[in-house]
This record gives sequence, structure tokens and C-alpha cells, in this order.
Amino acid sequence: MKYKATVVIRLKKGLLNPEGKAIKKALNFLNFDVEDVDSYKMLDIILNAENEEDAKKKVEEMCKKLLANPVIHNYYIKIESLSQ
Amino acid sequence: MKYKATVVIRLKKGLLNPEGKAIKKALNFLNFDVEDVDSYKMLDIILNAENEEDAKKKVEEMCKKLLANPVIHNYYIKIESLSQ
Repeated sequence: MKYKATVVIRLKKGLLNPEGKAIKKALNFLNFDVEDVDSYKMLDIILNAENEEDAKKKVEEMCKKLLANPVIHNYYIKIESLSQ
Repeated sequence: MKYKATVVIRLKKGLLNPEGKAIKKALNFLNFDVEDVDSYKMLDIILNAENEEDAKKKVEEMCKKLLANPVIHNYYIKIESLSQ
């Protein structure tokens, strides 16, 4: 069965996001009334798995092994079936 | 009024996403049965605007002027009110 996993990887609360801060400054410089900018990353992963639970488990393993740094990142996983 | 804009910035269809390809290769190397990986960027922007329409117009202008490259990127904007 084919699944699409959407993974959100973002910095934990309280950690400085230099990219967001830089974007905020640039927007303020362009006269936009912006109070805060936070940037984060999304991944769409197409994978094969036995069922939805298995897919979620696999993607969680991917996050732990490669995609996210558990010291600084939180991640959220959404699984969607692509098969009929 | 305060609004939160969530902006999705992703490469147009058909354009090569080297980051996604690199992640896919790394996952395959770790024995994950992954068929495709697409990566993209999200921004949460807290801004002041008169109403929802005004907020959307402002964020669209930000995208055009700074956040996205119209030649290679598509962007989607969702506006959410933070005021009561």
C-alpha cells in the first residue's frame, strides 16, 4: 500500500529562529507592519507500508534517524493513503 | 487587528528539487522503502492589518517582493484572525 506522509519539522519553542528573525527585519525594512515571523520545513514523503499505523511508525523512525534533530526540533506526522 | 498568515512556498511542478532527491537517497540508503520526497517551506507571519482581505493582500505583496521567487515558486496563503 502506498502512503503519503506530510512531516512538519520545526524548532522547539524558545529556540531562536535566525531565519525567521532575518525575514522579519527585511519585511519591516520594506515597511510591512509585521510582528513576528517563524519559518519551518515540510516534507511530503511517498512510501510503501503495510497499513497506516506501519507507515506512521516508519516515518517516525525516519525522523529520529535522519530528518529531525531531537535536541532542537519537534515534528508532526500526518499519514494519508494513496491506494484505493 | 492582528492576523496570523501561514504561507506555503514550494517549487513549481516539474522543477527539480535537489534537497528532496538527496533526502530520498539517504532514506533509501537507510533501507526505507521511499518512492519520492518533496521538501518545501512554511512561514508563520504575525501582522497587523485592517481586515482579513487587507491582511491577505499585504502577505501577497510580501511574497511578490521578498518571500517567493515567482519564476520558480508557487505560494499559498491562509489568514487567521488572532484578535477577538
